[in-house]
Amino acid sequence: MTIFLLTLFPQEVHQFFLKGIFKRGSERGLFDFRVIDIRDFADNSSNRVDHYPFGGKKGMLLRADILAKAIKSIDQYESYRIIYTCPKGNLLTQPMAESLAAEKSLIIICGYYEGIDERLFEMFSIERVSIARAVLSSGEVPALAIAEATLRLIPGVVGKQASIEDDSLLTGLLEYPQYTVPRTIDELNVPDILVSGHHGDIDRWRRKESLKTTLFLKPELLHEFVPDSKDQTYFAQILQED
Amino acid sequence: MTIFLLTLFPQEVHQFFLKGIFKRGSERGLFDFRVIDIRDFADNSSNRVDHYPFGGKKGMLLRADILAKAIKSIDQYESYRIIYTCPKGNLLTQPMAESLAAEKSLIIICGYYEGIDERLFEMFSIERVSIARAVLSSGEVPALAIAEATLRLIPGVVGKQASIEDDSLLTGLLEYPQYTVPRTIDELNVPDILVSGHHGDIDRWRRKESLKTTLFLKPELLHEFVPDSKDQTYFAQILQED
Repeated sequence: MTIFLLTLFPQEVHQFFLKGIFKRGSERGLFDFRVIDIRDFADNSSNRVDHYPFGGKKGMLLRADILAKAIKSIDQYESYRIIYTCPKGNLLTQPMAESLAAEKSLIIICGYYEGIDERLFEMFSIERVSIARAVLSSGEVPALAIAEATLRLIPGVVGKQASIEDDSLLTGLLEYPQYTVPRTIDELNVPDILVSGHHGDIDRWRRKESLKTTLFLKPELLHEFVPDSKDQTYFAQILQED
Repeated sequence: MTIFLLTLFPQEVHQFFLKGIFKRGSERGLFDFRVIDIRDFADNSSNRVDHYPFGGKKGMLLRADILAKAIKSIDQYESYRIIYTCPKGNLLTQPMAESLAAEKSLIIICGYYEGIDERLFEMFSIERVSIARAVLSSGEVPALAIAEATLRLIPGVVGKQASIEDDSLLTGLLEYPQYTVPRTIDELNVPDILVSGHHGDIDRWRRKESLKTTLFLKPELLHEFVPDSKDQTYFAQILQED
């Protein structure tokens, strides 16, 4: 898979993204991450890619003709999904990341300023994606979130497949609390059961803690959760205990 | 305002964040962005900050004792809000960014691996914040989204105050389409009205386009929108036209 990322800050994006598992994944050829400098397609001596909007001078817009040239510079761009980071867009979700990870290539355009000349959306089929319900200054961070959520699903990028699958977003429950060394920190101890060696007991404890955390912190997740008979017993115990 | 960001990739985060308006804002002393390397607080020769969880060896956890030392290294940490990037957390919203921007300082901890030893949450009051509903590999991107949404609200960071306020997320409507040079791209023209010079007509056209885009692309936004009598006329026209 290749991700083409169109940005005004190519060097910063490249250096930031290709670290840790993504550096290793890229070096092993599991995916290709190509950063395209939008300014390379500016057609004037000042290298400007933006201009005032017609009908009023508030803010600046990215020029559609320059972005169109940048997109068309990508070989076979017609067959790739194009994403634009935009607070108007659909929120990035795990099913969206899975659908993106099934593509051969993706083009991601970072948003800037007050937006893009509307005609770009008439020239290309472009999906608008957002990552939060807050205003950011530019599209690099959302673009990197989309790239990260997508590329970690490529087999081999994340070390162990288990680490991909058992995340709380996927099970529909919040995770149980976890503990590591040292056994004691400022009088706070690791729960005895976790160092008991009884794996059946540990699994039961973890399931119950997961149900409990979800019930008290994110009860709305339980609307779509179907408890089995053991879960029902745990819920009864939890409610009795508290 | 000072943001302290705790990460395993201090150099990459620092270089990536301090570009564009944030570079200028930092140089002008509008805020302070300090990146703390969690590894500086590792107490062993291998520099490791993570370890296997008790009760089962899936994945790795960040050690609570090491993170506690990193937090306590910050002067007056007791008086600062502490945020941890975590898919379990509340979604970053504009009201949340506004509330963070009103703080004197913030501490943001990037999440890694399978999470953090639970005792950290007993030792400190920590808010869990997420971006998107997708699994990422580490907390840098969410941490940077939080920092960006917050610091751009500091007066002077964004060039013109208008650019902060008129965003679509704040008005409750999607934005009207915008156009810039050139007037014609591949037979696509800028709408005549925008180059007419009649500012009253332009304002009316923009309001109507904003209502129309919202009605067709994100009708759910209209639940909380109170149209005035002009808006009601526009809605009637829009429905008649389509």
